[in-house]
Amino acid sequence: MSLNAAAVGLCDQAEKNSANLRLEVHSIAGARILDAGIAGAGSLAAGLLMARVCLGGAAEVRLETTADTELGSDVSVTVQTDQPLLACLGGQYAGWPVQAEDYFAMGSGPMRMLRGREAVLESLQLQEQSAVVAGVLESDRLPTEGVIAAIAAECKKEASALTLCVAPSTSLAGTVQVVARSVETAMHKLHECGFDVRQVVSGWGNSPLPPMAKPGDTVGGIGRTNDAILYGGRVTLWVDADQDAVDQVIDKVPSQSSADYGRPFAEVFKDYEYDFYKVDPNLFSPAVVTMVNLRTGQTRRSGRLAGDVLRRSFGIS
Amino acid sequence: MSLNAAAVGLCDQAEKNSANLRLEVHSIAGARILDAGIAGAGSLAAGLLMARVCLGGAAEVRLETTADTELGSDVSVTVQTDQPLLACLGGQYAGWPVQAEDYFAMGSGPMRMLRGREAVLESLQLQEQSAVVAGVLESDRLPTEGVIAAIAAECKKEASALTLCVAPSTSLAGTVQVVARSVETAMHKLHECGFDVRQVVSGWGNSPLPPMAKPGDTVGGIGRTNDAILYGGRVTLWVDADQDAVDQVIDKVPSQSSADYGRPFAEVFKDYEYDFYKVDPNLFSPAVVTMVNLRTGQTRRSGRLAGDVLRRSFGIS
Amino acid sequence: MSLNAAAVGLCDQAEKNSANLRLEVHSIAGARILDAGIAGAGSLAAGLLMARVCLGGAAEVRLETTADTELGSDVSVTVQTDQPLLACLGGQYAGWPVQAEDYFAMGSGPMRMLRGREAVLESLQLQEQSAVVAGVLESDRLPTEGVIAAIAAECKKEASALTLCVAPSTSLAGTVQVVARSVETAMHKLHECGFDVRQVVSGWGNSPLPPMAKPGDTVGGIGRTNDAILYGGRVTLWVDADQDAVDQVIDKVPSQSSADYGRPFAEVFKDYEYDFYKVDPNLFSPAVVTMVNLRTGQTRRSGRLAGDVLRRSFGIS
Repeated sequence: MSLNAAAVGLCDQAEKNSANLRLEVHSIAGARILDAGIAGAGSLAAGLLMARVCLGGAAEVRLETTADTELGSDVSVTVQTDQPLLACLGGQYAGWPVQAEDYFAMGSGPMRMLRGREAVLESLQLQEQSAVVAGVLESDRLPTEGVIAAIAAECKKEASALTLCVAPSTSLAGTVQVVARSVETAMHKLHECGFDVRQVVSGWGNSPLPPMAKPGDTVGGIGRTNDAILYGGRVTLWVDADQDAVDQVIDKVPSQSSADYGRPFAEVFKDYEYDFYKVDPNLFSPAVVTMVNLRTGQTRRSGRLAGDVLRRSFGIS
Repeated sequence: MSLNAAAVGLCDQAEKNSANLRLEVHSIAGARILDAGIAGAGSLAAGLLMARVCLGGAAEVRLETTADTELGSDVSVTVQTDQPLLACLGGQYAGWPVQAEDYFAMGSGPMRMLRGREAVLESLQLQEQSAVVAGVLESDRLPTEGVIAAIAAECKKEASALTLCVAPSTSLAGTVQVVARSVETAMHKLHECGFDVRQVVSGWGNSPLPPMAKPGDTVGGIGRTNDAILYGGRVTLWVDADQDAVDQVIDKVPSQSSADYGRPFAEVFKDYEYDFYKVDPNLFSPAVVTMVNLRTGQTRRSGRLAGDVLRRSFGIS
Repeated sequence: MSLNAAAVGLCDQAEKNSANLRLEVHSIAGARILDAGIAGAGSLAAGLLMARVCLGGAAEVRLETTADTELGSDVSVTVQTDQPLLACLGGQYAGWPVQAEDYFAMGSGPMRMLRGREAVLESLQLQEQSAVVAGVLESDRLPTEGVIAAIAAECKKEASALTLCVAPSTSLAGTVQVVARSVETAMHKLHECGFDVRQVVSGWGNSPLPPMAKPGDTVGGIGRTNDAILYGGRVTLWVDADQDAVDQVIDKVPSQSSADYGRPFAEVFKDYEYDFYKVDPNLFSPAVVTMVNLRTGQTRRSGRLAGDVLRRSFGIS
């Protein structure tokens, strides 16, 4: 089954359970919108749903009690996948900046593979055919009819084939779904470092669930969810690769390889006058990355957790 | 679906799997009784079932490896809910002292919302209509026909509409289901402190699973299960409230706010000559409570774990 | 339902999902073979499947974030069962050395109960009738037609009734399924110590998931998976027994009761010139064992975790 079809199936189930998930279901220009944080209040379960939709059903996502009590949150988000390339880079990576009229959202989910047009998708040949389309928008506004039409056109589909989940980064569900990106962040960083990520066969990630930022405080929301991964994320990747390829990359992968490491992301971002392009892209990866090499039996581990930065970011004394 | 109907559905499934759950299924005066600790031996899975029945299916309950190795148990009970008001106060709170003939049991579960008559239900307008009725009795005896008739009458139903799960506090299943009350305990304490618990949108709780007390040692059973929450329970509540309302209540919520805090519950209880009404009601709440305020982006955390008290209570040197 | 039938049902589901599980499905001499590490690459999920097949569906198996960060792996394998005797000793124990032609595999799973002929099965009267047969082979080779015929004959069935899962100890799936043996190891050791294991009513176990050994390095694979349990396994058993019986056995159960305790298993094994019969059989048990006695309300706990030995075994500095 395609990731888009699997994700739409998850949304079908969620719609039947929309009251418990606190989802508002809208029809906009013929597309189905599951709203988990704008008119709908959203929920923990809606956040898990959104994460699964992003991953096209090709990963398990759940909440666990945080193992390390110093990380500023008793609750953490865990991802387990045997299809990290497809699920994380084909689906979850927020590589589609959805812009139309005056609307902006970070777009993720398997709809990206119908659109193509991202360097990461093209270089890894991540694409799929599907009659239905599923995506996730991180935004504090619902998409307009024009936005829907633009998304559908980019996917070369009618709007009626579209199911989109929407939530702001400051909402309960939006926070859960972003913090579920620990494995994805490691995969993307590895790709940027030149490691052949098709060699990653399975992945596991865990990050503390931060407190939600104040509604409207988008920078705060992005800051805390980023920090959860940058300073609290632990990822294990099982790879089948030459050991040299692993050894060359392992110390570059975790967030501490970046000169911007060490402060809450919102502070870094402010110092760069809120210009994303000035932030060191190497910062965006988990705190600790472990690579278990099935080919050689060797394990490499790099990075460190930073509970003090997390507690500062989360406003916990 | 009503919580009563959802809970009865869980019992239907359990009945089909009764051998593996070590449930004895009785018919008493036309009511269905799932016995998980009297004639039936019960099991971990039966305890999880009873917890889910109490919560009317509106929460997830599972076992996890205990994160903190100092808490006297490698196994813990976790609750996750997006309907804490309905699930915990409408369902799980053991607010119905079932007394008829010479029988006594602590009654909980969604049947309480058909009966009404509890201050907490009335003040929060927790009630529901349902053709079927589900409840949980904490007792070391099966209810008699007269007890069943009394319960049915209070719910304004025929006995044949009733499904009741029964287990003693000292049994395997009974211990699991009581320790699943971490979020409920926090909700109830907040309500007693005057916080508007309708503002709690989601909850997460984890408590160590204590060793079961010796059969017949009801005080021991109540003691250890209480201690698991009072000294080992960690609860996170996501609220949508004025910050002042949170700030006024946060230090009152955890168990350490009570003058009776600091010793195993069975010792406290004995010193009060086993008179519940002499125990400080403020004692009954989790060790650590975190309130994440979605409205303000601020988090408050209060309380502390007490592994030494737990190990003493659990008889672990 | 018989454990064999339940396990075959799990394999039926897995076959439908074979692409995602990275299983190759072979038909050899009419038997169905789910290959999770020879021609098929296998996966974390395939390892969980194999563990569940071994346990005849009578236990839950899942991955959790490791609570103790010193144990050399962020990921751990958890087992939860209310039928430890049947699931672990009737199913999971690798008590069938499958030998035919020049083939050798450690055989486990409920097929053992159709064969009988093991002292542990006979003394505990573990047997079952079933039209279908399920087993797990730990081997780096697929069974030949002759091997299949021999297995079928021992089970007194046609080969077409057989479903076998196969994976090497060095593979992703093979490692997961072996590390799921924490409760089984405790049960077997207790049995060897003369404790009546029919008195164990429920079990919980957690062990860190080690890095896989290099393909072909069978000793390395066996070493790391053993070490995960010997030095990182924590098991809780709920028993209904005389306290004396527990007290006499508790300090003998954990691995530290063995003179061979304290070094990675591969080193011990090498010093004994790779002769299994020279290794102290008392070594094979979890690092920490807790016995909760439902009859007396008393808990005994013995053993200790050894993160240093684990990190050495796993090659993690």
